[in-house]
Amino acid sequence: MVPEMSEYWTPQPPVVTPGTVTPNAVITAPSDAIVLFDGKDLSAWESVQGGAAQWTVKDGVFTVNKSTGDIRTKQEFESFQLHIEWRIPEDITGTSQARGNSGVFLQGMYEIQILDCYNNETYVNGQTGSVYKQTPPLVNAMRKPGEWNVYDILYTAPVFKADGTYQYPPRVTVIQNGIVVQNNTTILGTIEYIGFPKTVKHGAGPLILQDHGDPSEPISFRNIWIREL
Amino acid sequence: MVPEMSEYWTPQPPVVTPGTVTPNAVITAPSDAIVLFDGKDLSAWESVQGGAAQWTVKDGVFTVNKSTGDIRTKQEFESFQLHIEWRIPEDITGTSQARGNSGVFLQGMYEIQILDCYNNETYVNGQTGSVYKQTPPLVNAMRKPGEWNVYDILYTAPVFKADGTYQYPPRVTVIQNGIVVQNNTTILGTIEYIGFPKTVKHGAGPLILQDHGDPSEPISFRNIWIREL
Amino acid sequence: MVPEMSEYWTPQPPVVTPGTVTPNAVITAPSDAIVLFDGKDLSAWESVQGGAAQWTVKDGVFTVNKSTGDIRTKQEFESFQLHIEWRIPEDITGTSQARGNSGVFLQGMYEIQILDCYNNETYVNGQTGSVYKQTPPLVNAMRKPGEWNVYDILYTAPVFKADGTYQYPPRVTVIQNGIVVQNNTTILGTIEYIGFPKTVKHGAGPLILQDHGDPSEPISFRNIWIREL
Amino acid sequence: MVPEMSEYWTPQPPVVTPGTVTPNAVITAPSDAIVLFDGKDLSAWESVQGGAAQWTVKDGVFTVNKSTGDIRTKQEFESFQLHIEWRIPEDITGTSQARGNSGVFLQGMYEIQILDCYNNETYVNGQTGSVYKQTPPLVNAMRKPGEWNVYDILYTAPVFKADGTYQYPPRVTVIQNGIVVQNNTTILGTIEYIGFPKTVKHGAGPLILQDHGDPSEPISFRNIWIREL
Repeated sequence: MVPEMSEYWTPQPPVVTPGTVTPNAVITAPSDAIVLFDGKDLSAWESVQGGAAQWTVKDGVFTVNKSTGDIRTKQEFESFQLHIEWRIPEDITGTSQARGNSGVFLQGMYEIQILDCYNNETYVNGQTGSVYKQTPPLVNAMRKPGEWNVYDILYTAPVFKADGTYQYPPRVTVIQNGIVVQNNTTILGTIEYIGFPKTVKHGAGPLILQDHGDPSEPISFRNIWIREL
Repeated sequence: MVPEMSEYWTPQPPVVTPGTVTPNAVITAPSDAIVLFDGKDLSAWESVQGGAAQWTVKDGVFTVNKSTGDIRTKQEFESFQLHIEWRIPEDITGTSQARGNSGVFLQGMYEIQILDCYNNETYVNGQTGSVYKQTPPLVNAMRKPGEWNVYDILYTAPVFKADGTYQYPPRVTVIQNGIVVQNNTTILGTIEYIGFPKTVKHGAGPLILQDHGDPSEPISFRNIWIREL
Repeated sequence: MVPEMSEYWTPQPPVVTPGTVTPNAVITAPSDAIVLFDGKDLSAWESVQGGAAQWTVKDGVFTVNKSTGDIRTKQEFESFQLHIEWRIPEDITGTSQARGNSGVFLQGMYEIQILDCYNNETYVNGQTGSVYKQTPPLVNAMRKPGEWNVYDILYTAPVFKADGTYQYPPRVTVIQNGIVVQNNTTILGTIEYIGFPKTVKHGAGPLILQDHGDPSEPISFRNIWIREL
Repeated sequence: MVPEMSEYWTPQPPVVTPGTVTPNAVITAPSDAIVLFDGKDLSAWESVQGGAAQWTVKDGVFTVNKSTGDIRTKQEFESFQLHIEWRIPEDITGTSQARGNSGVFLQGMYEIQILDCYNNETYVNGQTGSVYKQTPPLVNAMRKPGEWNVYDILYTAPVFKADGTYQYPPRVTVIQNGIVVQNNTTILGTIEYIGFPKTVKHGAGPLILQDHGDPSEPISFRNIWIREL
C-alpha cells in the first residue's frame, strides 16, 4: 500500500468561525449556530402555558418571571450541542431544592438540573449537573452566586422501536464551567419526581427552561446558542 | 411512592473550583486537575528519544524545537478530560500536511491531528480535529494563524479482551474552540500512515506531542491540564 | 489497491466442534465449553449456604431440593456464553410468582428469571426471560410444563471505574427456545426485590440457580455448559 | 417502599409458540416468524438480475443454480432475528475462497460469509462467520461437508444522520451451530472486496443469498425464517 490509499478529500467539513469571549459571553455563538438569545428579546421562546414568553429581559440577560411559568423554544430539535449561561442571584436564600432551582429540559423531556449547589447540600441526583432524579454529576463544579455558570451540552436524541421502547436511549454529556459532569450518560427515561423513569416515545422537542416558583430571587440566563448535530 | 424514595444523598460528588479566563488561558485548570504546563517549565514532560524535553519555553508558552523529536508526559493515563491550547505561528508557510503539522497522541497511541487548516486544504481525515487517517472532524473550526486554538478532549480508554482484541474500543469527543468536532467517535485502532488501523493491546499511556519536522515555523502550546476520569 | 491488502491470515480462530442433538440435550456442549452438568453429578456446584450441592440428580437431570437453598458453580466467570435447559414439572400448581419460580444469576448478581409463564400471568418484569424487576422479555416464548426450555445467554460483564460506578454496565442477550427475548439489554444494576437497582462493584462471579421455595413441585435442569468470552 | 412499586403488568409481551426439531429443521419457525422458505418453493424470493428466482428446489431444500445469479427476498427488513440452515456439498472441491463460497447479505448490504472452512484455510476475515473483509469469527465452528450448518443472526440496522454518516452503525451477533462467532460486532461499513469499508446511507433492504459461481458443486439452504425486531 501507499499512504494515499487511506486519504480522502471529500466531503470537506463545513468551515465554522468560532465564537469569542465578550463581557456578556464566555464564548459567543459560532457562525453556524442558532442563536436562542442574543441579549435583546425572547422572540425565540414562548410560554409553555401559551402566548409569549413573559420572562424579564434587561441588560443583555433574561430572568425568570415567577408565576408566568416555564418557557420553551419555538423551534424543536433532535440531537444538538447547546451552550447556555446561567446565574444564581447573589442574594439567593433557601436550602436544598428551594434555593435557585431551575432546569433545562432537552427535547422537552429530560432535565439537566440547575440549582445553587454552592455550599448547599441536597440529594445528589437532584443537584446541579444531575440528570434530575437519575444520575448525579461527576463533581460539583458550581461557581458562587452572582457569577455566571456555563453548560455545554452534547445531547443525542433517542431512537425508538415500533413498540415505543428505546432502540437507543438518549445520551448526554454535560460540561459545566469547563469541567465534565456528565460523560456520555445514558438517560434512563422520563424525569419522574415520584417513582421510576418511564419510556415515552417522542420526536423532536423544544428546550424548556423551568420556572420552579421558589420564594427566593429568581435565576437569570444569557448567551444561549444551539447547533444541530 | 413518595418523592424521597428516588432521592439519595451519598456519596457527595467532590467539590471542584472551576478555572477562570486569564490573558494566558482560555480557562485555567480546575482545582482537581493535573497541570501539565503552567507556563514555566517542561518538568512534566520528557523527550520520547530519551532525556529531558528540549522544546523551547518562553513567555508562558512552549514551542516545538525541531529536530529534538516528540515529547511525552512522564505520567501515564487511562481515561481523561484534557484541555490544551495551541497556536499556529502567524508566519506559517507550506500547504496541505506541510503547514503547521503536529498532533496530540492519547495514551501514546491515538492521534488527534493538529494542522493549520485555515484556508489550507488537505485530505479530510488528516485535517485538524480528525482522528488521523480515520475520522474527519464534523466541521472545520480553525482560528487564524497567530490566534490560540483550544482542544477540550474527553477520552475513554479501551478495554481489551484476553486475546488482545477490543472488548470496548477507545472513544473520543473533541471540542475545538467551543465547537464539537468529534462526538463520541469510536477510534478504530492504531494510527497507521499506510494501511488499515490495527488492534494493539496496551495499558495506561502518556500524552505525546508531535514534532513533525516541517520546514516552516513551529507551533506553540500553553495551558495544558488533565483530569482523570 | 488490490484485494490482498484487506486480507489477513493470522491469528487463525480456534477450531471448535459443535454439539449435536441427543435425547437429553437440545444441543450438547461444543468441544471448547466447560461442562457444568453432564447428567451425572453436581461436582461443578456447591451450596450457597456452604457444603456440597444438595439438589437431586436422577436420570441425567437435576432438580431443586427444597429447603437446601440456592446452588452455585465452584468456578467464577466474567463474560460468557451459557447454555442451560430447564423444565417446569408437568403437575405444577400455583399462580403468578408462586408457580415454578427459579432463576439464573449471572456473575452471582443479575437474575434472568425462570417461572412457569405458560398461561400464567404475572408482572411482566418478573416473567420468564425478564431481567428480574428490570426488563421484560420481548415475547413470551414458554414451552408447556413438562417440556424442556432452553436459555442461550450471551453475557458481557460490566467494567467499573475506580469509584465503583459502571464504566460499562453489564449487558445480556437471551435466546429462549430459539427466540430472542433479551436483545443486548443493558442491566441497570443489582436485582432489588424492593426499590431501585443499585451499582455494586464486583469481579468474576459464579452462576447461581435459585431455590425459590415455592409450595408446588420443583423445577429441573439438564445439559448446562458455558464458554468464556 | 414495597415490592409492588417496581412491578408492572402491561403491556404483556406477545405469546409466541417456539419451533421444534424435525428431520428437515434444527428448529422450525416460531409462530410469529415470517417463513422465507418452507421447503416447497422460492415464492418469497426473486432474482437480483430480475425475474423469478432460478435456484433449484428439491426434497425440501434449495440449491444455488450457478450462472443464474444472486437471489433476494421480495420483502425488505430493518432489524431482525434470522434463522438459516445451509450445507456444503459432501463432494466439495477447491481451496481457500474457491470452496463452497456463498454468503448472506443483511439489508442487501452487509455480508456474513459462507464458505467451507472445514480443513480449508483462507484469510481469517474471509472465513465462515466473518463479516466479510472486516471481522473474523471468534472461532471456527464449521460442520463437515454434507452436514447442515445453522446461522442464528441478530441484526440491528444502522441509524443515519442527515449527512449520511452513521448515528449508530449496524451491529450483528451470529451464532453458528449454537456457538457465538460474532458477539454484537459493529459493522464498519460496506463490504468492499478492494479497499476500506464505506458508509452508504440506506433504508430497509432484502436478504440476499450469493451465487459465487465457483467451479465446484454448489451449496444448499433450507428452513429460513425471520422475525422483525
